[in-house]
Amino acid sequence: MIYLTRRERFNAAHRLYREDWSEEKNMEVFGKCSNPNWHGHNYVLFVTVKGELKPELGYVVDLKVLSRLIREHIIDKLDHKNLNLEVEFMKDRMVSTEQIAIAIWQELEPPVGSLGVELHCIRLEETENNFVEYFGK
Amino acid sequence: MIYLTRRERFNAAHRLYREDWSEEKNMEVFGKCSNPNWHGHNYVLFVTVKGELKPELGYVVDLKVLSRLIREHIIDKLDHKNLNLEVEFMKDRMVSTEQIAIAIWQELEPPVGSLGVELHCIRLEETENNFVEYFGK
Amino acid sequence: MIYLTRRERFNAAHRLYREDWSEEKNMEVFGKCSNPNWHGHNYVLFVTVKGELKPELGYVVDLKVLSRLIREHIIDKLDHKNLNLEVEFMKDRMVSTEQIAIAIWQELEPPVGSLGVELHCIRLEETENNFVEYFGK
Amino acid sequence: MIYLTRRERFNAAHRLYREDWSEEKNMEVFGKCSNPNWHGHNYVLFVTVKGELKPELGYVVDLKVLSRLIREHIIDKLDHKNLNLEVEFMKDRMVSTEQIAIAIWQELEPPVGSLGVELHCIRLEETENNFVEYFGK
Amino acid sequence: MIYLTRRERFNAAHRLYREDWSEEKNMEVFGKCSNPNWHGHNYVLFVTVKGELKPELGYVVDLKVLSRLIREHIIDKLDHKNLNLEVEFMKDRMVSTEQIAIAIWQELEPPVGSLGVELHCIRLEETENNFVEYFGK
Amino acid sequence: MIYLTRRERFNAAHRLYREDWSEEKNMEVFGKCSNPNWHGHNYVLFVTVKGELKPELGYVVDLKVLSRLIREHIIDKLDHKNLNLEVEFMKDRMVSTEQIAIAIWQELEPPVGSLGVELHCIRLEETENNFVEYFGK
Repeated sequence: MIYLTRRERFNAAHRLYREDWSEEKNMEVFGKCSNPNWHGHNYVLFVTVKGELKPELGYVVDLKVLSRLIREHIIDKLDHKNLNLEVEFMKDRMVSTEQIAIAIWQELEPPVGSLGVELHCIRLEETENNFVEYFGK
Repeated sequence: MIYLTRRERFNAAHRLYREDWSEEKNMEVFGKCSNPNWHGHNYVLFVTVKGELKPELGYVVDLKVLSRLIREHIIDKLDHKNLNLEVEFMKDRMVSTEQIAIAIWQELEPPVGSLGVELHCIRLEETENNFVEYFGK
Repeated sequence: MIYLTRRERFNAAHRLYREDWSEEKNMEVFGKCSNPNWHGHNYVLFVTVKGELKPELGYVVDLKVLSRLIREHIIDKLDHKNLNLEVEFMKDRMVSTEQIAIAIWQELEPPVGSLGVELHCIRLEETENNFVEYFGK
Repeated sequence: MIYLTRRERFNAAHRLYREDWSEEKNMEVFGKCSNPNWHGHNYVLFVTVKGELKPELGYVVDLKVLSRLIREHIIDKLDHKNLNLEVEFMKDRMVSTEQIAIAIWQELEPPVGSLGVELHCIRLEETENNFVEYFGK
Repeated sequence: MIYLTRRERFNAAHRLYREDWSEEKNMEVFGKCSNPNWHGHNYVLFVTVKGELKPELGYVVDLKVLSRLIREHIIDKLDHKNLNLEVEFMKDRMVSTEQIAIAIWQELEPPVGSLGVELHCIRLEETENNFVEYFGK
Repeated sequence: MIYLTRRERFNAAHRLYREDWSEEKNMEVFGKCSNPNWHGHNYVLFVTVKGELKPELGYVVDLKVLSRLIREHIIDKLDHKNLNLEVEFMKDRMVSTEQIAIAIWQELEPPVGSLGVELHCIRLEETENNFVEYFGK
């Protein structure tokens, strides 16, 4: 079993916000992260898959294929977007780093599985000081 | 003469956009950077000042004072903000990395001068692949 | 279960040294790391906590609260300090990266627990080439 | 139990290639990574060992000893080399990041064990966007 | 006048070598960098251009256009290549970091000029510890 | 003319301090940087030299020679040392980043000149947020 990680990046706007709370309540709980005019980040995404080495090819999965799959399912939908308003799979979720990571897991698990490897970890960095990791359970 | 650089960071939303153009024209010229729902970045700012060494103190300027000045004049006004809508000194400017850097220069030059040093360079990184430098002329 | 990591930094002096050994013995075993006049590092600390997502808030723990807790219990006690002479919780320990990491775990586990999450890992980087990780057992 | 990681680097040439395939087949499957004239990388290697703290010394293993061991067994054999042509322990293997990591594990496990610690992970970065991890099984 | 920098990367094989010297002489002068079986690097290229701000667009030059131009003239010709054998514009040159940087300047200056900006600096990093800068004179 | 930069690192203890001031005055002016028990840093040093390309060798100066020279004149004297107590060339100077950079310039200029190149810049990073540059005048 070997673990392979691909790094990708996307730049997006977001805010922490609950629709069923007043703006005052949102600001009180989430502070400046709830700015109604949005703010944004250069998110850094690490997708780790695991699998057996394919002996005839020497690798677990073709990195070009993995990268293309991440771009198609995730990056193209998140990059230069407003994560609260424009991302189908973030609908009805708090747009926190935690929730984005979990949603990315759910979006990537089926297509990654179809490559004959298993999704192992989604790591999402919001700033150089903060990141989350999700292992699917 | 010695050069001292302080790094600070801010996370903000923006878009490239001209009000006197239609949305179609904006999208045609600026592409996804003109998304009307905004996107954002972790901007990294390097402020370089130059001056003579103060022999009795061993430094050009007190870093704590310089950092506080940058926070007061720049970071507090840009961090977790929408650069198009909420920043007084970006009014009537294209919110490009170039224009933000020039505006930061104009905001910082007077207070930096009052510390007895000269502003030398504003370097602003938008992503790990793009940055601009402005030397005031 | 999701894992959240906060990065903090502190700059400190230290030496590897056993009081019950002669200076010669200390130098022989620990080399230049035992310099009696001290040396120092920019330590980089990664604190990883794990917990269930709080569904009403979208996160595991409020990052501002976690950061403040790490500053109060760790950074304020280690930053710009001599780790051998001035840190209560390093008394009677070898001031190695390993021992500092273990001591940080012991200091942080109770207050982190009071936030409703579990401390998962202390990662402490001494230089860009060396780091230790401690998982509490 | 504590985990200690040492980072080392080596610069080398390689290609993805199967001798029993035609050049056309190699190029079709491996693309530009199969260029018969070679290409190369600045590989970054992270060796993680685990063990009990030696209480009298305060560390798991002497970093100077660990670093020297990695240099002798791995770096001196890979740095500024052609990984397909000049490395005894890569003979008859596909020279993929995965296979290099597994071979490094096999080379390092015995000598690391002789230091009284256990090899835990080989992490090998080929570029800033790609890395593999191998845990020995 | 404002300075804009774009970072690009390429992975390539090379050796330091003079055809008119014996292998012994090459090894004696250039050491392991002259390995006849090649070695390689992840080169990091920073292209800095300077120009007046285009007031109607807010930038000096369209980054997408600049990036495409660098890819077409440089990256596509160097990435996953052998710099000694396969690069037209490196023919009859020592394949040192210095010479690669100067050659990149010569290749880029005309097309960059056609964008209405001036090429200011080529910075080429061979490893995290070594880089060269060339300003065209 | 081409510019070549070599990065080196050293870990050291220091404090900001004037002997002719009381401890109270030192603490008042320099704050925690004046802790009498010392603190320390992982300093990162960039030495930039400039010169004509040696056409027969393809480089400005042999990097191995430059690196050895920096190690001999600077790193061996600063690494794992107390910069206030143990460094001949820091005697009677404030041990600020600015003064260390200037002293390194003065130490390196003669031997660098003997390599047939000119010292261009000393850049010294104290933390990831602070650095100074000195160009010799």
